[in-house]
Amino acid sequence: MIKDIINKKENRLELTKEEIEYVINNYVNDSILDEDMTLFLNAITNNGMTIEETYNLTIAMLNSGDKIDLSSIEGIKVDKHSTGGIGDKTTFVVLPLAASLGVKIAKMSGRGLGYTGGTIDKLESIPGFKTTITNEEFIKEVNDINMALVSQTENLVPADKKIYALRDVTGNVESIPLIASSIMSKKLASGSDKIVLDVKVGKGAFMKSIDDARNLARIMVDIGNKHGKETIAILTNMDYPLGNAVGNSLEVIDAIKTLEGKGNKNFTNLCIILASYMVSIARSISIEDAIDLVKQNLYNGKGLEKFREFVKYQGGDLSKIETCKCVEIYSDKSGYLTDIDTMKLAELVRDLGAGRKNKEDTIDHAVGVEIFKHINDKVEVNDLLLKVYTSKEINESDYSNLFTISNNKREEEKIVLGIIK
Amino acid sequence: MIKDIINKKENRLELTKEEIEYVINNYVNDSILDEDMTLFLNAITNNGMTIEETYNLTIAMLNSGDKIDLSSIEGIKVDKHSTGGIGDKTTFVVLPLAASLGVKIAKMSGRGLGYTGGTIDKLESIPGFKTTITNEEFIKEVNDINMALVSQTENLVPADKKIYALRDVTGNVESIPLIASSIMSKKLASGSDKIVLDVKVGKGAFMKSIDDARNLARIMVDIGNKHGKETIAILTNMDYPLGNAVGNSLEVIDAIKTLEGKGNKNFTNLCIILASYMVSIARSISIEDAIDLVKQNLYNGKGLEKFREFVKYQGGDLSKIETCKCVEIYSDKSGYLTDIDTMKLAELVRDLGAGRKNKEDTIDHAVGVEIFKHINDKVEVNDLLLKVYTSKEINESDYSNLFTISNNKREEEKIVLGIIK
Repeated sequence: MIKDIINKKENRLELTKEEIEYVINNYVNDSILDEDMTLFLNAITNNGMTIEETYNLTIAMLNSGDKIDLSSIEGIKVDKHSTGGIGDKTTFVVLPLAASLGVKIAKMSGRGLGYTGGTIDKLESIPGFKTTITNEEFIKEVNDINMALVSQTENLVPADKKIYALRDVTGNVESIPLIASSIMSKKLASGSDKIVLDVKVGKGAFMKSIDDARNLARIMVDIGNKHGKETIAILTNMDYPLGNAVGNSLEVIDAIKTLEGKGNKNFTNLCIILASYMVSIARSISIEDAIDLVKQNLYNGKGLEKFREFVKYQGGDLSKIETCKCVEIYSDKSGYLTDIDTMKLAELVRDLGAGRKNKEDTIDHAVGVEIFKHINDKVEVNDLLLKVYTSKEINESDYSNLFTISNNKREEEKIVLGIIK
Repeated sequence: MIKDIINKKENRLELTKEEIEYVINNYVNDSILDEDMTLFLNAITNNGMTIEETYNLTIAMLNSGDKIDLSSIEGIKVDKHSTGGIGDKTTFVVLPLAASLGVKIAKMSGRGLGYTGGTIDKLESIPGFKTTITNEEFIKEVNDINMALVSQTENLVPADKKIYALRDVTGNVESIPLIASSIMSKKLASGSDKIVLDVKVGKGAFMKSIDDARNLARIMVDIGNKHGKETIAILTNMDYPLGNAVGNSLEVIDAIKTLEGKGNKNFTNLCIILASYMVSIARSISIEDAIDLVKQNLYNGKGLEKFREFVKYQGGDLSKIETCKCVEIYSDKSGYLTDIDTMKLAELVRDLGAGRKNKEDTIDHAVGVEIFKHINDKVEVNDLLLKVYTSKEINESDYSNLFTISNNKREEEKIVLGIIK
């Protein structure tokens, strides 16, 4: 049977709903082997699929696992998905802006494989943040604060997990029907009423050409609409890194700056557009009116407030977010260095993570200080005294206060103070 | 019985060898409770101990566990111990210098509790370095390359482990007989023939006054000599941080600089003195002759060569050592920024640890880049283009090459390229 189906697709004939269901169901329950599935995927990559086939593939995949029931959340639930870019932290800006305007967002997200981390990896750079909560907590959170953002549950579209792993090793990642069914099966399983798709185009995106991106967007929108979920795709430029940072904690910080109205201009505009389409379809208002509302909540701080509320709700502590950096401490006086507060320095360095306060503490080997001036060294204003290598926020004056600079040298101290035999 | 012994010490009477053995043996086998042991330790802290008592306490502790047998190592084995300071990485400089001059060093070391890490923590900042090896490997290493440096074995002076934990929580850490017996029981158990003690004095040391330090040194030297192991203590200044770095990997790097002859002057001199006493007692030559030899091997690179040999022998890779830092990338041209190689940037950031190459990779949330110039921004020579937050060594040109700077602006690109509904 599977051989016949592969043959049919290799001959560019349209597969029936039943044939597609047969392949997906039997691949998930291990009755179809990876070798045959590879031939099936190759045939799709080479010959494409009609909209009807792609829809049936999506629904067969959707039916392979759990569907999230969001019916106990009142109001219009809107999901958002990005096909992925470099420095893409739009979710952290767009979701709070839309949620602050009454849109209900119950979003599941994934980890990144290849290049920077995914949304879940970025969230995990916030100490304490829980990316896994129970279904009940997830729904309660959306009812309480309009938004929740968690890791995909284990049994969401298992067909996609298995097929994606196989596509990855068999060179079948670039087929538009396979991409569309992978994304849309998960979006439909996640249970929202409406969907906004951010389809990235350009040098830093999966879709390099506008034509490919438009085809992918068209198919995904058709699948969503056919399934009764209003879907809209925005094709957006991904030639250059998004915003002012690429990384994990650095992108969370960049998102906060954007919500403070101090972000990169292009990135801010992108977030406004995406949030506005979410608001527009959730509240059935014009995109122009939605843009006005989103801009208001960006510049009056309500978006940022919502983001902080959301992070706190899921246990995260933004004050503890860590980036790897080196802070240089300069002298604001001239003279001679006559004292360094050694014990205080030791405490500070321990608190950076170089030592343990308790036996069970783990050590951060990469942190510490480098000392550039020693006792009786001549110091000029703006001379470098210390470099602090740290992944934590520090108070620079704690470090500059360690150094005493006087007009005159002090008495030289001996290194060896005695020998006992 | 224990009550009588406590009473006796509270009345400032001298305890017999048998009484001290009774307490130690029965505390180790849990027959004496923490409450009684606390009273016993309090009595020692308050009333002190004679040299004879302190010696007997040391030997009773020594006999509570394994003794390392180094008899299969030919030549004079010399151990070194520091009472601990801020930025104390002398071991990494002193041991290779002495070992490069034929001294046999089979050293066991501990982790740090409080302030910066201990020697073992610092060694563990070298990727791959094994701090635990079998006894046979330990001895073979000393026979092969003259030195080995490992974590204390589990059953080395269990009495000290148990007593130290109790002292820590009961305020009995500052008693000279308790400090001396703790240090010397471990030194004697470690099996070397001769011992050099670096007793630190000053603001950054456990012993703040020269008198206390001299007393402690005197007692430890007497215990060592009485047990048939030639022991010498050097009292050294610990008012200011040792060398140019405080941390873990930073101290290893600082030690290497010192072995390259480019270290802090005072710290270098301290290391020369300590290594010279090890050479002097191992080879029974004058301290002056030993200093000449040590200086030779410092400045001809033989000490550094020995350190590299030792690290490699125990599996470490110095090229992979990581510090937390921020590298700033500046423009060497003026004009307009017309291109950023986004995919290459993504690859570089992934390789810093922000993303995964393989599914099982863990993400370093703290690393990434911050972008300071965007498309069509005016750029002057020495303008900041990028900050790279990293714990790895990077090639700065990889990052500066990402940016194309031209004489003229390029055509503006749109953010939104299309809407598909």
